[in-house]
Amino acid sequence: VAILLYSPNDDLLAWRRELLARRPDLDVRIWPETGDPAQVTMALVWLPPPGMLAGLPNLGLILSLGAGVDAMLRDTTLPDLPLCRMIDPALTRSMSEFVLLHVLKYHRQLDLYALQQRRGEWSFYLALPASERRVGIMGLGVLGEDAGRLLARHGLKVSGWSRTSKTIEGIASFAGEKELDAFLGELDILVCLLPLTAETDSILGTKLFARLPRGARLINVARGQHLVEQDLIDALDTGQLAHATLDVMRTEPLPPEHPFWRHPRIDLTPHVASYSLPESGVEIVIENIRRFGAGEPLLHVVDRGRGY
Amino acid sequence: VAILLYSPNDDLLAWRRELLARRPDLDVRIWPETGDPAQVTMALVWLPPPGMLAGLPNLGLILSLGAGVDAMLRDTTLPDLPLCRMIDPALTRSMSEFVLLHVLKYHRQLDLYALQQRRGEWSFYLALPASERRVGIMGLGVLGEDAGRLLARHGLKVSGWSRTSKTIEGIASFAGEKELDAFLGELDILVCLLPLTAETDSILGTKLFARLPRGARLINVARGQHLVEQDLIDALDTGQLAHATLDVMRTEPLPPEHPFWRHPRIDLTPHVASYSLPESGVEIVIENIRRFGAGEPLLHVVDRGRGY
Repeated sequence: VAILLYSPNDDLLAWRRELLARRPDLDVRIWPETGDPAQVTMALVWLPPPGMLAGLPNLGLILSLGAGVDAMLRDTTLPDLPLCRMIDPALTRSMSEFVLLHVLKYHRQLDLYALQQRRGEWSFYLALPASERRVGIMGLGVLGEDAGRLLARHGLKVSGWSRTSKTIEGIASFAGEKELDAFLGELDILVCLLPLTAETDSILGTKLFARLPRGARLINVARGQHLVEQDLIDALDTGQLAHATLDVMRTEPLPPEHPFWRHPRIDLTPHVASYSLPESGVEIVIENIRRFGAGEPLLHVVDRGRGY
Repeated sequence: VAILLYSPNDDLLAWRRELLARRPDLDVRIWPETGDPAQVTMALVWLPPPGMLAGLPNLGLILSLGAGVDAMLRDTTLPDLPLCRMIDPALTRSMSEFVLLHVLKYHRQLDLYALQQRRGEWSFYLALPASERRVGIMGLGVLGEDAGRLLARHGLKVSGWSRTSKTIEGIASFAGEKELDAFLGELDILVCLLPLTAETDSILGTKLFARLPRGARLINVARGQHLVEQDLIDALDTGQLAHATLDVMRTEPLPPEHPFWRHPRIDLTPHVASYSLPESGVEIVIENIRRFGAGEPLLHVVDRGRGY
């Protein structure tokens, strides 16, 4: 049984080590040392070049190293095989930590103080207790729910919006287009953790921003394609949004001439909000490899119609 | 029984409201409407002008609206009366929240990403799990202990240093000058929450910085007088310190020409790390007023010899 590993970002030697520590019988190959493609029945990959997986004639299972599979689904040559998302405690924890950090940044108004520092201005604003700071999370999947729970444990006032209604302790739930206005209308800080689908593509645009209270803050840690870039710049210019934090871009790396780089009211990070670790992420991979071998139902299979 | 209120920062009308809600019999006066100074037996104050309290002939009790009383103790005319510090759950919580925010900022390397954004550079650094990020807190009083516990709950690796050894779950304790090297030598992030005393004045200087690992980060949320300003600039210039966050200054407001304003590796905030709220801080004030009236021992009395 051969499994092929590919990723431009991950430490694939560490992944191989963790896999072999649990399943010494596995034949773990790291691209481009694929060997005989006909022997490869499984692939553990992140951002594989289009066509790469189509070149493996006996492939039966695709395991994603990341939580979001939208890029893979855009590959029109992607074989019609079971595709499983990465669910890794380290990935979830790092995302929630990153969300908490940026929510607290806005809660404590560091964006205003940073602008004041540039002007050499010493003045302070009324502080709000965490219990009165209204944070909304779009997307209540594994990542959104965990981030919401962490924010609620910290004492913030948390609400969430998703396609279907959820019941999560400490998080006020809103669902569907008809509850979107009520959700957005009460927020100081909006966090986007949606999956990227046809329905959520470009959802962060002028129409949505107009439904937020004036001066709200935006944190996008999902996908760059959720955001209409010019609409964000317009909303910041008019003051409808006070500040934005972006970890993901439509084009990554962000091109050098892009206006986001120098915008005084945008904080950029280079897609570092979350990361999976081989030591913890390997567990779900091993379990799905076992299930695949035993012909049992797989975990966290992507619904291609839904897109996540 | 008259109590006089003074503060350049606090909402004294709210403090009066909260006091009267619990003790309608109190005669609460807000400076400069002092009335007959001879009737004032208690003062609830923050940064009173030197000499102000000395002008109250029958004063018997001084209650501070803030946690640190160093500024009041520098007033050589301060009457030799019981002086009680503010212990307020909201003050403690807001300080711990602010410390967590800035520790996470350094843990997730936002200081490096902010510098990269200015240069238009997209590159990312190896992420460290919170459990491997070493944070040290100088000062394990009410505020230091609470901040340390919050950091430990978040999964960070926390140690603390204080005058005398403390036993706090989840925090490795170091005490006194002879354990200072061992404490400092292992830190990625140093947080100063010391009281300002003759011993701690100017403690954050070249000698201390040299004992930290190269590239450590500093967060000072205690007093500006803890820091030797030129030593910080030197340590940032040589790279001994990678970045500093300062909420307190030797002179507040920080003068417009001060080099800290424009230093690319210093984040400034205008003394906003913690704040007491009348709704919660009033409880300890009411209790000390009761004890004062009943001749019982007061809570949180400052030891003037020790300075806190």
